Amino acid sequence: MSKAATDNPAGSIASAPVAIEAAGVVPRAKPSSYPALFAARMAGREKRVLGDLFGLRNFGVNLTRLAPGAASSLRHRHTKQDEFIFVLDGEPTLITDAGKESLHPGMCAGFPAGGAAHHLLNETSADVIYLEIGDRTPGDSADYPDDDLRAELGPGGQWLYTHKDGSPW
Amino acid sequence: MSKAATDNPAGSIASAPVAIEAAGVVPRAKPSSYPALFAARMAGREKRVLGDLFGLRNFGVNLTRLAPGAASSLRHRHTKQDEFIFVLDGEPTLITDAGKESLHPGMCAGFPAGGAAHHLLNETSADVIYLEIGDRTPGDSADYPDDDLRAELGPGGQWLYTHKDGSPW
Repeated sequence: MSKAATDNPAGSIASAPVAIEAAGVVPRAKPSSYPALFAARMAGREKRVLGDLFGLRNFGVNLTRLAPGAASSLRHRHTKQDEFIFVLDGEPTLITDAGKESLHPGMCAGFPAGGAAHHLLNETSADVIYLEIGDRTPGDSADYPDDDLRAELGPGGQWLYTHKDGSPW
Repeated sequence: MSKAATDNPAGSIASAPVAIEAAGVVPRAKPSSYPALFAARMAGREKRVLGDLFGLRNFGVNLTRLAPGAASSLRHRHTKQDEFIFVLDGEPTLITDAGKESLHPGMCAGFPAGGAAHHLLNETSADVIYLEIGDRTPGDSADYPDDDLRAELGPGGQWLYTHKDGSPW
């Protein structure tokens, strides 16, 4: 493969599809990258990774399903990454510093870097399905006001987790 | 306002909402930033700007409606920006270097920087509605294989258009 092809994000995904049925994508195998104590709290959350399938690198797009009782994440905010969600099905509860709000299909919310800590909970008896978008600005970190956790984005794009005092999990 | 508040993208949007009904957002007043000859070809395209309402800066999210006969854009590709679309309603035709494909609700497509030139057409008699996402990587430019047009992203985030030979429109 030529250097030009190697450098080309499209060229490096030789089999990238033109368009896909989002619900037909196989869910991500690893349910969460959190330390085990917190990963256990992500039961019932299922992510279909969409953007990466097309070779996108600047932001990620997932189709995420929350079974009844499941959460989108621990409540958190990023220092560099902007995030956005669009509800496709069901009625998630959005929890931010401002309180709780029930959402429904066609509603959206955005979470700018440095803004309010947030997450979604499915407090209903039906599935919730939404699109989530987040960019991949280098040097990002995340704080978790309700949990003894901090995260730093490593140079390879993986999250590195510590206690709030900096000691490793 | 303190410097810290000025520097904080969330703090600078004092009235940013927590969540909104996407379809209730007032459409963007300016239909297109293209030179007039090309802007006229964007009739029937209506964009509701969603991400900016929440103070997002790293990427944009629009809820876009194409009336029958309308196009998403001129067929183009970016050098730096990744793009993604998710169909919510109707059946747009996706046109890329690979040909034509009819999409339907629940389908998505991604267009990595440097990848295939692309756009959507509404060749049906019903509206098409989709979400579009694109990042704002500095130094972006766009080329338009079917038209005598080039675009460079200016330092203020505005698009600067020229003919392919570099002369201004």
